[in-house]
Amino acid sequence: MLYSEMNKEQLAAEKEKVTALYGDFKKKGLNLTMARGIPAPEQLDLSINMLLHCLDGECKSREGIDCRSYGVLDGIAEAKEIFMDMLNVGSDEVIVGGNSSLQMMYDTIMRALQLGVLGSEKPWCRYEHVKFLCPSPGYDRHFAMCEALGIEMITVPYMQDGPDMDMVEKYVSEDEEIKGIWCVPMYSNPTGITYSDEVVRRFANLKPKAKDFRIFWDNAYCVHHLYDDKQDKLLNIIEECKKAGNPNMVFEFSSTSKISFPGGGLAVICASKENIDFIKKQMAFQTIGFDKLNQLRHAKYFSNFEGVEKHMKAHAAIIRPKFEVVEYMLEKELAPLGIGEWTNPKGGYFVSFNAPEGCAKRIVSLAKEAGVVMTNAGATYPYGKDPLDSNIRIAPTFPSVDDLRKAMELFCICVRLAYLEKNA
Amino acid sequence: MLYSEMNKEQLAAEKEKVTALYGDFKKKGLNLTMARGIPAPEQLDLSINMLLHCLDGECKSREGIDCRSYGVLDGIAEAKEIFMDMLNVGSDEVIVGGNSSLQMMYDTIMRALQLGVLGSEKPWCRYEHVKFLCPSPGYDRHFAMCEALGIEMITVPYMQDGPDMDMVEKYVSEDEEIKGIWCVPMYSNPTGITYSDEVVRRFANLKPKAKDFRIFWDNAYCVHHLYDDKQDKLLNIIEECKKAGNPNMVFEFSSTSKISFPGGGLAVICASKENIDFIKKQMAFQTIGFDKLNQLRHAKYFSNFEGVEKHMKAHAAIIRPKFEVVEYMLEKELAPLGIGEWTNPKGGYFVSFNAPEGCAKRIVSLAKEAGVVMTNAGATYPYGKDPLDSNIRIAPTFPSVDDLRKAMELFCICVRLAYLEKNA
Repeated sequence: MLYSEMNKEQLAAEKEKVTALYGDFKKKGLNLTMARGIPAPEQLDLSINMLLHCLDGECKSREGIDCRSYGVLDGIAEAKEIFMDMLNVGSDEVIVGGNSSLQMMYDTIMRALQLGVLGSEKPWCRYEHVKFLCPSPGYDRHFAMCEALGIEMITVPYMQDGPDMDMVEKYVSEDEEIKGIWCVPMYSNPTGITYSDEVVRRFANLKPKAKDFRIFWDNAYCVHHLYDDKQDKLLNIIEECKKAGNPNMVFEFSSTSKISFPGGGLAVICASKENIDFIKKQMAFQTIGFDKLNQLRHAKYFSNFEGVEKHMKAHAAIIRPKFEVVEYMLEKELAPLGIGEWTNPKGGYFVSFNAPEGCAKRIVSLAKEAGVVMTNAGATYPYGKDPLDSNIRIAPTFPSVDDLRKAMELFCICVRLAYLEKNA
Repeated sequence: MLYSEMNKEQLAAEKEKVTALYGDFKKKGLNLTMARGIPAPEQLDLSINMLLHCLDGECKSREGIDCRSYGVLDGIAEAKEIFMDMLNVGSDEVIVGGNSSLQMMYDTIMRALQLGVLGSEKPWCRYEHVKFLCPSPGYDRHFAMCEALGIEMITVPYMQDGPDMDMVEKYVSEDEEIKGIWCVPMYSNPTGITYSDEVVRRFANLKPKAKDFRIFWDNAYCVHHLYDDKQDKLLNIIEECKKAGNPNMVFEFSSTSKISFPGGGLAVICASKENIDFIKKQMAFQTIGFDKLNQLRHAKYFSNFEGVEKHMKAHAAIIRPKFEVVEYMLEKELAPLGIGEWTNPKGGYFVSFNAPEGCAKRIVSLAKEAGVVMTNAGATYPYGKDPLDSNIRIAPTFPSVDDLRKAMELFCICVRLAYLEKNA
């Protein structure tokens, strides 16, 4: 029976029942987390051979570069090639960096603030305000970065196939202080959606008032499919920007953090050759080069992009059952009651759950009290403020299937209890 | 016979002779470099086992942290310990970073410019001018970084035992826009000197007008002794700053770039706990953590700081003969003529050569024409401008001993020729 169809007495009885269920759960003393998109240890084991036999005394790159020594700011050829094939860019459109794409994004914004990007009239920090559009719910670390750097955030809602592009177009064309927009365009964090071709083309055809506006295209989950048969496809934004006559408008980021190792992978920035040349000139004062031994390790282990694709199937085999548990539990426990909505993504690392309005904080707090840590409610919105107090990001990859089942069982009880506390 | 004692005819004859020698050398078609402080391949071979068997499937840190995964912003305990013993700091006074100390310095300045350091009234970029003192000759990349970031540089001359501290004290106490000073305090780049205890104490007791003034203490060569029996010693600046009641006035940097691998080592920033806490808060928005697998690799390979010290003796055995070639050639070829002065450092990576005034550029250009690349004349001064056109940095580590002998032979001929062109 739908909660919305229950009368007062039924709701009161239901509340008593669910309170008891919650009490039972608390006694179990769970200690689980569905808070962050972290690969499970078995996923990390998939790449373990990279650490064992990959650099058997041979530290020269294909082009004869001693990867132990200094230099090669944009990365060795064989590492670049993997990303070139992954993201469909040319060799002069990519810089392979260190172990963190977040760091590449942060550094990119710091350089923009302090020095400006290609085409800037002045460094961004010389404007009274610098603003970023933030399609939400989105990635909390993007938003936290803006807040830490004093960049004003403007929330843009998500539609079925990407951000509300009418709003994006309007904002960007009218306000010179809007210098950027955050996008996770594929298997988005946390919604799981992939931007439609039309959305990507509308992005590429933006007519920003700020000549130095940039799309921050965090393509973190570009190869992170859950299924062999049903996979999302994303248009190549760099290519579309070229076609639209806006070749320099986008910075694309990705990494192997959830392909090889979160702590020891490779990150990458892609952009037009002009952008990359400009960035390299700035970057040359920051470092002589990133860790080429790790680049060589990855290149030898994966051989090429096909190696990565094959590897991702092994990841999917491990995490697909976990997504299925989440879907199954939500469908079984909450669908019949008509409370909450959620996504069933075909890839990525998250399920996005929209609780009944005004319930998200309470749900997360109830879950925490009973031993299951979720991403903070509100974290998926700028300044941590979800206007509806509704969205909760579920990160199912790290726990075991068994633990996840328990955690989801509790989660569904918390959703019910939070609703009933408000409405019974 | 000293050149200064030669009469016109003797100088003319000498010039003819040296011109012929130079001509002969040009015909040899050398292709060598003494430009940058790069370890020779045999030095990199010393650490090769770190890449082979160090992580035999075991990726957990001593404290049970899976080094493949996210987190641990300041580094794993066993990696921190090596640096704690190397630089005599506590575990809450150090952050182990990525592969580049230059990057840590750059990032530190970028954060200071954009956000300020502990105790800043406002971010440095909100001042009309930001100025750094630059003891010179110094490290060209320090100076290039300042120039790229729009930081004004003020040259301070070097004395026998460190920078001219009268001048440093005066500048720092009078000008609020002076926010930093670059120091390579041990086996300095390029002079090879080590700051005396008195100099270090005077640094620690500075009374800066700017409350957020920082000493950038690039202790790159702290364990890079050339000899077992004669070694420089450097006072611990962090300790001295504490004693002087200025605990937060210094950022110390170091790395294993010239211990393990220039392209794949570990970098470190050390400072007071208060500073480190402040930095970590800012840094948490830039990255979730640096490459802990590489930290574990280093910790396992070296075991502890004693392992590093032992390792450095093997480095010294390789590069000491190269320094000796440089000293021998200069002594043999130039000392009898009375042209040029040079240092005989007991460690580090460079010999600093002061040519007769107005000759450095010409010498470097003559050497290049005959196939030996030196560091650009002037590079050791802010804005690349050596007021006396005298200083040349000699980097002897990369070439083989045989090549180095040839290169030095040519170099001495170039010094003589440049002098004679001017004076004959």
